[in-house]
Amino acid sequence: MARAHWGCCPWLVLLCACAWGHPKAVDVGGQDVRNCSINPPYLPVTVVNTTVSLAALRQQMQTQNLLAYIIPDTDAHMNEYISQRDERRAWITGFTGSAGTALVTMKKAAVWTDSRYWTQAERQMDCNWELHKEVGTTPIVTWLLTEIPAGGRVGFDPFLLSIDTWESYDQALQGSNRHLVSIVTNLVDLVWGSERPPVPNQPIYALQEAFTGSTWQEKVSGIRSQMQKHQKAPTAVLLSALEETAWLFNLRASDIPFNPFFYSYALLTDSSIRLFANKSRFSSETLTYLNSSCTGPMCVQIEDYSQVRDSIQAYALGDVRIWIGTSYTTYGIYEVIPKEKLVTDTYSPVMMTKAVKNSKEQALLKASHVRDAVAVIRYLVWLEKNVPKGTVDEFSGAELVDKFRGEEQFSAGPSFQTISASGLNAALPHYSPTRELNRKLSSDEMYLLDSGGQYWDGTTDITRTVHWGTPSAFQKEAYTRVLIGNIDLSRLVFPAATSGRMVEAFARRALWDVGLNYGHGTGHGIGNFLCVHEWPVGFQSNNIAMAKGMFTSIEPGYYKDGEFGIRLEDVALVVEAKTKYPGSYLTFEVVSFVPYDRNLIDVSLLSPEHLQYLNRYYQTIREKVGPELQKRQLPEEFQWLQQHTEPLSARAPDPASWASVLVVSTLAILGWSA
Amino acid sequence: MARAHWGCCPWLVLLCACAWGHPKAVDVGGQDVRNCSINPPYLPVTVVNTTVSLAALRQQMQTQNLLAYIIPDTDAHMNEYISQRDERRAWITGFTGSAGTALVTMKKAAVWTDSRYWTQAERQMDCNWELHKEVGTTPIVTWLLTEIPAGGRVGFDPFLLSIDTWESYDQALQGSNRHLVSIVTNLVDLVWGSERPPVPNQPIYALQEAFTGSTWQEKVSGIRSQMQKHQKAPTAVLLSALEETAWLFNLRASDIPFNPFFYSYALLTDSSIRLFANKSRFSSETLTYLNSSCTGPMCVQIEDYSQVRDSIQAYALGDVRIWIGTSYTTYGIYEVIPKEKLVTDTYSPVMMTKAVKNSKEQALLKASHVRDAVAVIRYLVWLEKNVPKGTVDEFSGAELVDKFRGEEQFSAGPSFQTISASGLNAALPHYSPTRELNRKLSSDEMYLLDSGGQYWDGTTDITRTVHWGTPSAFQKEAYTRVLIGNIDLSRLVFPAATSGRMVEAFARRALWDVGLNYGHGTGHGIGNFLCVHEWPVGFQSNNIAMAKGMFTSIEPGYYKDGEFGIRLEDVALVVEAKTKYPGSYLTFEVVSFVPYDRNLIDVSLLSPEHLQYLNRYYQTIREKVGPELQKRQLPEEFQWLQQHTEPLSARAPDPASWASVLVVSTLAILGWSA
Repeated sequence: MARAHWGCCPWLVLLCACAWGHPKAVDVGGQDVRNCSINPPYLPVTVVNTTVSLAALRQQMQTQNLLAYIIPDTDAHMNEYISQRDERRAWITGFTGSAGTALVTMKKAAVWTDSRYWTQAERQMDCNWELHKEVGTTPIVTWLLTEIPAGGRVGFDPFLLSIDTWESYDQALQGSNRHLVSIVTNLVDLVWGSERPPVPNQPIYALQEAFTGSTWQEKVSGIRSQMQKHQKAPTAVLLSALEETAWLFNLRASDIPFNPFFYSYALLTDSSIRLFANKSRFSSETLTYLNSSCTGPMCVQIEDYSQVRDSIQAYALGDVRIWIGTSYTTYGIYEVIPKEKLVTDTYSPVMMTKAVKNSKEQALLKASHVRDAVAVIRYLVWLEKNVPKGTVDEFSGAELVDKFRGEEQFSAGPSFQTISASGLNAALPHYSPTRELNRKLSSDEMYLLDSGGQYWDGTTDITRTVHWGTPSAFQKEAYTRVLIGNIDLSRLVFPAATSGRMVEAFARRALWDVGLNYGHGTGHGIGNFLCVHEWPVGFQSNNIAMAKGMFTSIEPGYYKDGEFGIRLEDVALVVEAKTKYPGSYLTFEVVSFVPYDRNLIDVSLLSPEHLQYLNRYYQTIREKVGPELQKRQLPEEFQWLQQHTEPLSARAPDPASWASVLVVSTLAILGWSA
Repeated sequence: MARAHWGCCPWLVLLCACAWGHPKAVDVGGQDVRNCSINPPYLPVTVVNTTVSLAALRQQMQTQNLLAYIIPDTDAHMNEYISQRDERRAWITGFTGSAGTALVTMKKAAVWTDSRYWTQAERQMDCNWELHKEVGTTPIVTWLLTEIPAGGRVGFDPFLLSIDTWESYDQALQGSNRHLVSIVTNLVDLVWGSERPPVPNQPIYALQEAFTGSTWQEKVSGIRSQMQKHQKAPTAVLLSALEETAWLFNLRASDIPFNPFFYSYALLTDSSIRLFANKSRFSSETLTYLNSSCTGPMCVQIEDYSQVRDSIQAYALGDVRIWIGTSYTTYGIYEVIPKEKLVTDTYSPVMMTKAVKNSKEQALLKASHVRDAVAVIRYLVWLEKNVPKGTVDEFSGAELVDKFRGEEQFSAGPSFQTISASGLNAALPHYSPTRELNRKLSSDEMYLLDSGGQYWDGTTDITRTVHWGTPSAFQKEAYTRVLIGNIDLSRLVFPAATSGRMVEAFARRALWDVGLNYGHGTGHGIGNFLCVHEWPVGFQSNNIAMAKGMFTSIEPGYYKDGEFGIRLEDVALVVEAKTKYPGSYLTFEVVSFVPYDRNLIDVSLLSPEHLQYLNRYYQTIREKVGPELQKRQLPEEFQWLQQHTEPLSARAPDPASWASVLVVSTLAILGWSA
């Protein structure tokens, strides 16, 4: 789980927002929000004055003969996190939340966002902007139809709408006599002008061979072989997602927060490799690494990033068929390819191939998780000593765990903004503390830490929830049921090619049993120094079937509004299961190695199988992390690990559940009086 | 489960056929199949000579200027079972299997069907027909493109293609310069002529009020109220499925095997009720019951069945919006309604409303299941006595259980063709014995009975698997794991509005654990004297979310090719669950009341919770069925019931599973040497 939304996929925002219901706004520092209903309006100091920039935008709209202009919250690559220069919606509105669409007409301006951000929007937007507490294209179009007359033109930047989003606008407007107009030059950018953050310019570098699963040449050959075997014989694969280019060429940079990517597209044809990026960012070594001085089918020709649309359009003039994944391709590319020359799948072959890690990639990801466990354990040990002193707050805690991770070998920063949430704040799904707004950690409250690291060998993501004092019976029950969910899904044996959606309820059953549940997804894929939320692996309806070699998080939770939040998240590898009878079955091998909080486990709720699983897992943690802690000369942490991985004992072999069966049976024999 | 396919839905045949893989052909009477590769060809006596009818069909095609003609396997109402006069594909090909599409060109003729029917097709078709061992429109269209030249016209009866199927043909042919041509007069019917079975003519009768959940007037008002509340304000609902008309008007007949329906359509507008059927089949009492002599909004105007297309077309000229369920509407209706006048959902409001039974309907369905249990128990008792004598075969057994059901109050025949399968035949998913081809029942083999009844108050469907001798350890393990699956799903507590697809894996987990599985769905809705496979309730991806008041079967199984088959099917009502913490949760209440076979249960595999559930279920069976057996003066059956519902005992309170935990824990303490 992370602050923004899952899976680099904008549609998930909707899913997430709906599923979470209406959590209360963050209430850690008062509710100083705007009041536009009085005259003059009340505006808190956090508000941005947008009058001038809005006027300038409307002038641009006028030159294009537009009555409305759509400003989405994404970038040209459908990234989960976007760089500052792509934060157009934030810049023009003042509202910096990660999700929300803006629409400007000649007279009005409005933002649509979900309940996570309502308070934030009221604190950041001035009264030029209406706030609409809805998401999806339907309410936007409904509003649009009342605001602009028939015949009106609605402009949009085609690089900021996915094919699906464009289709939903197009369908909603059909028959309305309002026209969607694709305008390649972004009008907000024109207004933003020189103030707009510059194009990132750090070097694009090749990963050391030690950190790659295959050479880029092997990957290119593999994708070409898929093209050849494809029924529709595509002549090229077009890659729009930054993680696709990064993976294919084993290249990395730091253009995007938390993701080691660089702005790029790639067109891999049967006879050429064309990488659209800023050539000045490649060192001569990297250019040599890419064979970029030659022109054969295994040489990478680097073309300028800005040329991609024209180049694809020119390529599409030939007798070609271009294979795209519709989830990550924008309308800006889509509209220049004749439909009969498109070969479409939901996910590109690179996305599909990347989802299954080879044995070297598996080993790399596992190794990064061992080191990551060291950082998290160091933090938990430190908390255990320092929280009782009353000196730790959520923000300083988050900084410390980030620091501990930074001290690990191959570290390249956090993989998302650390969620460090104490007490009632942990019930807010996407809460992150700030230096200004945060809560003190206390032995009287539960504390939830959801964090992860980028390392050259792998990306990590783990959530642990702890309590240093005396948890309530309800907190222990909820925690234990979340743990049972985690275990039940982790140890599940299921047929190969089962979709995650079919089995994710196993993570919920122990909660459902007593009327509890959680409102978010149960897991997501994860990459090798790539996305922390790596699509298309996971447990949602748009995820692909499970296959050996995939990694996914498993993260049930429970949230009690205004009181506490629990989430137990591990990363697991999909492995072959050895079944009693032969067959093609899979199961999970957990590769996160931090023990759960014994203080919060009610052993009486665990079955013998749960205890067996848990004790085996703890044994593995000792085997994997123990030597690492000793090697680092961290005796205190080693001691802590031994204590926290002591085998949990089964209850007396005559538990109430057995007794109740005997009682029911006896009553039954005596005449069904039970 | 039943012989043909589930859910009155043709697309399920594909799903089913694929999921089952390639079961072997029924091998109970030799393999006397055609051989078209020798000259002259070898044709078994079971083959039908189709030369004359094919020539006549091609003549008809010529008059329509067609190069090909599609002959589907369904009728104009997408019925699961079709009447003889709709068996066009069977008549023109000779092949009588329930699934398979035929295509005739001027030179060739071919049938596409799934593996269940390959042997049967080779035994019934002469050498005029190619057999293609594939299903779906893609292989048909691929073949078509090689067989007919560009510009060719491909005819079809629009009443025999669902909207979806038409779209798949249309899409597959797009850009190929072959044209789909809708021809309302069925060309096979023209050739069939006077030989074609006549239109059914039995009376259409109203159900007694005792057997209906609401009056038809109440139902009509309810649907109209949904029309009014609908955002798109439809002016009419069009009903194409026969079960919709039967349900809405509380009318029944016997036009369709196993289903008490009559050929009809209904157009329910905001101001009129138009029932398209054969008026001569209504008695004056029934006409009075329908207020058919008046013209107000609560009077049923009966129009001729054959007028439906013209009438809908005429209605669609007005300022109207017609609400249809696309799953059951054919292209023959769809093509006469302008697209902008359509309001489409997957299922019509009648289909959706019918899915949730009110309290009276629930009581009726439950009552029918008590009497149904009496019939099944009588049969099981009889088998226990007679199988050892070696005088019972699958067919005579099926006849007897049908007879016992027929003796129950309100009986209206079986709800599908009884599956009575001994030994290896039970591993064939859709096996039904015939008088000629059947297997003897034996104490050395398992026996599977999947059967159900139509009663005026309800429709039933139950499967039990038994063994009268000494089952193998594997048979007991497989049976017990199927039983655990049944129990785990039946006792599941889940949030309201969860889709069945999300939870059906609970019925599989105990099998998956050891590498076993089954290849069919886990359950389907069921009606009140309506369809035994009542869509859209169930556990498949196209089923709707579970709601209180729905009935579904729960029927995991396990099949060992060439050896045996196990299925344990119960019907269950979706009810509110009482959870420890408040919330909107559901669970199932099983309403099938026949005990499982103790001889096949390995108690050591059951958890305390399973035993508790099972003993409570047995207690309920005694309470519900015991008094009924006593009332009927069936002491032997009563005695049998008592024996077979004795509470099952938990094993000693120190079972292996607990011991293994202790061992593992101990080993762990001793240094992780386990």
